[in-house]
Amino acid sequence: MKAYKDMSREELLALKRSLEEEFETAEKKGMSLNMARGNPGVSQLALSMPMLDVINSSSDMNTLLGNDTRNYGDWDGIGECRWLLANMMNVKKDNVIVCGNSSLNIMFDTVSRSMTLGVNGSTPWSKLDQVKFLCPVPGYDRHFKILELFGIEMINIPLREDGPDMDLVERHVNHDAAVKGIWCVPKYSNPTGISYSDEVVRRFANLKPKAEDFRIFWDNAYGIHHLYEEDQDEILNILEECEKAGNPDMVYIFTSTSKISFPGSGVSAVATSFKNIEDIKKQMTTQIIGHDKINQLRHARFFQNTDGLNAHMKKHAALLRPKFEAVLHILDSELTGLEIGSWTRPKGGYFISFNAMPGCAKSIVAKCKSLGVTLTGAGATFPYGIDPEDSNIRIAPTFPTPEEMKEATTIFVLCVKLASVEKLLGE
Amino acid sequence: MKAYKDMSREELLALKRSLEEEFETAEKKGMSLNMARGNPGVSQLALSMPMLDVINSSSDMNTLLGNDTRNYGDWDGIGECRWLLANMMNVKKDNVIVCGNSSLNIMFDTVSRSMTLGVNGSTPWSKLDQVKFLCPVPGYDRHFKILELFGIEMINIPLREDGPDMDLVERHVNHDAAVKGIWCVPKYSNPTGISYSDEVVRRFANLKPKAEDFRIFWDNAYGIHHLYEEDQDEILNILEECEKAGNPDMVYIFTSTSKISFPGSGVSAVATSFKNIEDIKKQMTTQIIGHDKINQLRHARFFQNTDGLNAHMKKHAALLRPKFEAVLHILDSELTGLEIGSWTRPKGGYFISFNAMPGCAKSIVAKCKSLGVTLTGAGATFPYGIDPEDSNIRIAPTFPTPEEMKEATTIFVLCVKLASVEKLLGE
Repeated sequence: MKAYKDMSREELLALKRSLEEEFETAEKKGMSLNMARGNPGVSQLALSMPMLDVINSSSDMNTLLGNDTRNYGDWDGIGECRWLLANMMNVKKDNVIVCGNSSLNIMFDTVSRSMTLGVNGSTPWSKLDQVKFLCPVPGYDRHFKILELFGIEMINIPLREDGPDMDLVERHVNHDAAVKGIWCVPKYSNPTGISYSDEVVRRFANLKPKAEDFRIFWDNAYGIHHLYEEDQDEILNILEECEKAGNPDMVYIFTSTSKISFPGSGVSAVATSFKNIEDIKKQMTTQIIGHDKINQLRHARFFQNTDGLNAHMKKHAALLRPKFEAVLHILDSELTGLEIGSWTRPKGGYFISFNAMPGCAKSIVAKCKSLGVTLTGAGATFPYGIDPEDSNIRIAPTFPTPEEMKEATTIFVLCVKLASVEKLLGE
Repeated sequence: MKAYKDMSREELLALKRSLEEEFETAEKKGMSLNMARGNPGVSQLALSMPMLDVINSSSDMNTLLGNDTRNYGDWDGIGECRWLLANMMNVKKDNVIVCGNSSLNIMFDTVSRSMTLGVNGSTPWSKLDQVKFLCPVPGYDRHFKILELFGIEMINIPLREDGPDMDLVERHVNHDAAVKGIWCVPKYSNPTGISYSDEVVRRFANLKPKAEDFRIFWDNAYGIHHLYEEDQDEILNILEECEKAGNPDMVYIFTSTSKISFPGSGVSAVATSFKNIEDIKKQMTTQIIGHDKINQLRHARFFQNTDGLNAHMKKHAALLRPKFEAVLHILDSELTGLEIGSWTRPKGGYFISFNAMPGCAKSIVAKCKSLGVTLTGAGATFPYGIDPEDSNIRIAPTFPTPEEMKEATTIFVLCVKLASVEKLLGE
């Protein structure tokens, strides 16, 4: 394969003509495929259907402690579900609050509470002239949208193979009192799929924040979402590391079963220090009498324990691997050597991250759209929707079938090539 | 019966001795009963158990529109559940957002959103020097706690037989730009059980708020919670009345099925104008991808329509009536003519409200507690937990059995008498 950048103008023009022909052919086919969001596929949803039989009209509705899940009570979740999710997060049950169906909701509420009420008695962020968050990029668009809604200033931090650029993180956090938080997806990161190294986790735990109300928002959304049985990432326990480092209150860990049981009908949780839990309690017990405990019971009884969760995740992996591999196979065989893009090879999570030649991402996404393939909007993986390089594209291979993924990736590759040629021709 | 106030000092002292003997006897019995919170009883919870069979592993999980309830989507709720709750609220489906398990949570989030983001573009309340809410009293403690948490100033408004004192409401709302809201439980009010008259609802709709971001928080928690089949309260449709009066955006209506299906595992909703829905959407779609749609489907399929809801509520009523009547019977036969208290006779809802002689409520609640009968804390029905008269006590007859309610009310009556005698003796 000859790299596009080494081609002559004539070669590029000839290539462009041939790609345009392919494009027209594809246009006539009229596809309709969505690779935009990390939605589980239908076959994955089917895996959890037996969960819906676990609780029925003849079930014992009491928790192990004898509390009736059908009535009010247990604002922090029923014991067995707290235990299940604590084990999933490798933390102690007493550090966990099990909430409703959405960890995004917990994260939003955590930022909102900090805005209106402060953090453990600190000045409410809404009363401050400036509040800043560090945002490793590329990252999760919904994290950024929360900050944007509240008018919190976002600072891009490059995300590397082993985690965020920690020199930069330390410089900001340890020297700027306006920096109040950082978003992290520490394992099988959204969208790059990388996991934080032990050194990175330890450097996080050993931050010396200038702001006492600085918090790490540790969104462990893909903690047990491995693709392979033998080759799995593991990350250090941030809560434990923070305790060791004398920063016990510095982190909130978020998780949910949205991509384990059902998106929208799962259970979510936050794990943090007792002091932070007391702080959350003041707000949460005013906000709600309790979350859906019948659904918590359903989850606790269906999964039973960590073995049950892991066995279930193996079934997800078996369905997801072919989709990821279909994408990677086409990217490898069609783009290797052309020097018009690079891509990640995640061992878990929900996304593949593609970096096009600078200045090409928007054009690629638009071209795909016109051929009926919807991708996450270019720029969405950056604060304010602005990718300074216009390069990153998030590919979500989970929802379509493997066959559809092949078709969609073939279209994607075509659009990458065409956009790159146009760029090199200065169009 | 001779009124206590007409008794001589000797008569009161003799009465006191005999009541104290009764008290000691009761003390030895060692009861343990809770009339503090409006929890449905176990027999009520059993009514909804068949709902847990409606969705199982062989169910069609698609909505009528063909959306898969198991996956992400439908941030404002699935169509059939919006339709069901819209009918329950007598509003149009398009005015309804169906949310999670808790209407309190929607109310909290509505106040919180107003604090951080403002209302339809108004200045966020957190940026204002003063924010005030009107609080009809006695009222629902959890409403007041939300305002207290956010530091919003609460102004007591007397609640009468037909609703809040509207002269006072108009004076505040129409002349003070700091007044941003009012809590209403318009039907079978918590705790007095009264319902708003048509005139009161119309006066609400015709308010001319000084603040453009003034909103009525219309918590229709007991909209279909009648106790009697033939004698039911009905209230005017506030959303319609507000539209007619040229105040289409002035009201949020809240409801839930917490006391229809399961507390904590029901569905909740807000109904409001399209403009307000757009305002809510901006925040809510950032906060959450969607609420629990499988549970929404479960509710929609179980209740089907308004007839289904009403048939179900008749079963609740049959269980609740004997409990309310047990309390009223004992209050009537033991306290009538003594002039040491008055009480309401609600035709629906979850509470009976008792007004003791001024200065006696705390003492009564403390005495009951020492005999093992837990009541809602005295003062809880007022902002900041301060009843200026120390008079109101909320009785929640729903959770205990009718037999237990009789025992508990007998204790209550004894404590009312003893506290009143002590008061009259100047102790």
